[in-house]
Amino acid sequence: MQRADHIAPSVTPEALQRRLDSRTKPQGSLGELESLGIRIGLALDTDRPRFTQPTIMVFAADHGIAADAVSAFPSAVTGQMLSNYLSGGAAINVLARQHGLALKVVDAGVASDVPSHPGLTNRSIARGTRNFRVEPAMTAAQCSAALGAGRELASATLRAGSNALLLGEMGIGNTACAAILLHRRTGWPLADCVGRGTGLDDTALARKTALLAEAASRVSENLSPERTLAEFGGFEIAMLIGVLLEAAKHRCVVVVDGFAVSVAALLAIEMDAEVAQHCIFSHCSAEKAHRALLAHLDARPLLDLLLRLGEGSGAALAWPLVDATARLMSEMASFESAGVADRAT
Amino acid sequence: MQRADHIAPSVTPEALQRRLDSRTKPQGSLGELESLGIRIGLALDTDRPRFTQPTIMVFAADHGIAADAVSAFPSAVTGQMLSNYLSGGAAINVLARQHGLALKVVDAGVASDVPSHPGLTNRSIARGTRNFRVEPAMTAAQCSAALGAGRELASATLRAGSNALLLGEMGIGNTACAAILLHRRTGWPLADCVGRGTGLDDTALARKTALLAEAASRVSENLSPERTLAEFGGFEIAMLIGVLLEAAKHRCVVVVDGFAVSVAALLAIEMDAEVAQHCIFSHCSAEKAHRALLAHLDARPLLDLLLRLGEGSGAALAWPLVDATARLMSEMASFESAGVADRAT
Repeated sequence: MQRADHIAPSVTPEALQRRLDSRTKPQGSLGELESLGIRIGLALDTDRPRFTQPTIMVFAADHGIAADAVSAFPSAVTGQMLSNYLSGGAAINVLARQHGLALKVVDAGVASDVPSHPGLTNRSIARGTRNFRVEPAMTAAQCSAALGAGRELASATLRAGSNALLLGEMGIGNTACAAILLHRRTGWPLADCVGRGTGLDDTALARKTALLAEAASRVSENLSPERTLAEFGGFEIAMLIGVLLEAAKHRCVVVVDGFAVSVAALLAIEMDAEVAQHCIFSHCSAEKAHRALLAHLDARPLLDLLLRLGEGSGAALAWPLVDATARLMSEMASFESAGVADRAT
Repeated sequence: MQRADHIAPSVTPEALQRRLDSRTKPQGSLGELESLGIRIGLALDTDRPRFTQPTIMVFAADHGIAADAVSAFPSAVTGQMLSNYLSGGAAINVLARQHGLALKVVDAGVASDVPSHPGLTNRSIARGTRNFRVEPAMTAAQCSAALGAGRELASATLRAGSNALLLGEMGIGNTACAAILLHRRTGWPLADCVGRGTGLDDTALARKTALLAEAASRVSENLSPERTLAEFGGFEIAMLIGVLLEAAKHRCVVVVDGFAVSVAALLAIEMDAEVAQHCIFSHCSAEKAHRALLAHLDARPLLDLLLRLGEGSGAALAWPLVDATARLMSEMASFESAGVADRAT
């Protein structure tokens, strides 16, 4: 990343707070939405933010580690759910329709046959990663290609007029992948990073942790974020990182979904600190390590509903709060214009 | 309330959970929204809930206690904000437009001159309550009239085709009123019930608490909920209670906003336990006693964003989550219909 690519905002946090304070409401009464408003204003560089063409991007890919049965579901479900997104029956479809969100479904590397469909963006790197328990998940070239695909898709979407990307993922086995990435990037004990994913019981959770410990022991040296991604990552995670890196160069916000997307954000922020200024963390999920990761990122999630569905559903559920914050800043009357007294004195 | 008025649902919690479990998502992965879905299904008596004509009802009134300067704002602001609602510049207008919510603004008893306006429902009981520090806030007849007005407005709105009411309030001094009602109904120490409202400093908070202690000492005996309401309540609180009591007789949900509306719900539930089955608590506000009150009501608020704006804004901000839950239950494909494997085995 070249820092010179970034656009420095001309609006200041102080000006944004003044804008909020002059609206017809007690000062500070929008609570957490006030700091969100400042974040949005800075990312979009305006004190009257308006979102245009908000777009959910769901990246789907398979994981070699799934052969070790680290998930309650078989790998085939990744492709089946991709088809479900394309036929409009999944949770993310319902939420996209509710909120008027465009939905871009990307095959980042699904293992099963995926029929071509006008709603599908095919950027498949390979039919799933290799099993990182025994070998690197992807080659350096594949990792670079996946990052590049994410950048290109983000750039095209943003240049076409969107200023808000909502990020989601689908990939059987990808909480295992996210957990080992988190472990490797933070140094936190593996057991603190591994969770139940789509619903493992205690025995299966212990097995998942042991498999990941074996995988982690395969590479002892410290790696760069990109090398870590190639060793243990997934194609959807890499594309998400590409999107985040590209978004940091535009006047836009990125709404981060659950655990896997938050891990992608962690790596993206390591690669370019500016990414953090564009991220809105939508929710704290039920996946074990998510709360600690959000705290590590100094993120205050908007929702805390024990969601663990993925596919961008948490980002879509939180979207109306993000949009509302922009609308409140732009559309509310001021004390002066409405003729309302702003204090007792 | 005659219990016979209530409609027993024919759908069961078990049938609703089965409906949720057969949708294309890991079981339980919608977290808190799953219990919300069951609540909605029971209240609407269907496993395919659809909301129609969701309506925000904002009740505005003034309080005699405001003459003692228990708020950071003067009483005149109640009427000024009412005008702001009618001209579309307040937070609740922005949120109503965003979510396609009808907005009904009710003058329940504003002290200042309120110009007639096609958007205003005039059910004014009097130009503010009397100062409950020195005398009863309202007569028994006024209390009964306010409860009746709330019932009538709810009944008319629900019979006209709405099955979701979002409740808000505006009234300078009404956190003082809500605090003393909470104190009298729960027996909790007054200091635990009183908060900063629109933004009191420590000195003003201590003064507010002392004034309320003086008011509470005026009546020593235990009173019925309705007598307590007449002694210490407000016209907007009474109308909110009327709405809640009426709603319990219909197939509908009521989305409760912040502290004042939650106190109205507390009294309404005391008057008719069935009310609780229809309430969805939208958020936990920054007002001091709200969290304890929600716990007392066994309510799990959807949002926890330190909002303290009132006027139904928290209910409107949470509305998309309520609507999303109904849509997910109604619109998501099943594992069977989508051809998705529902387990590894």
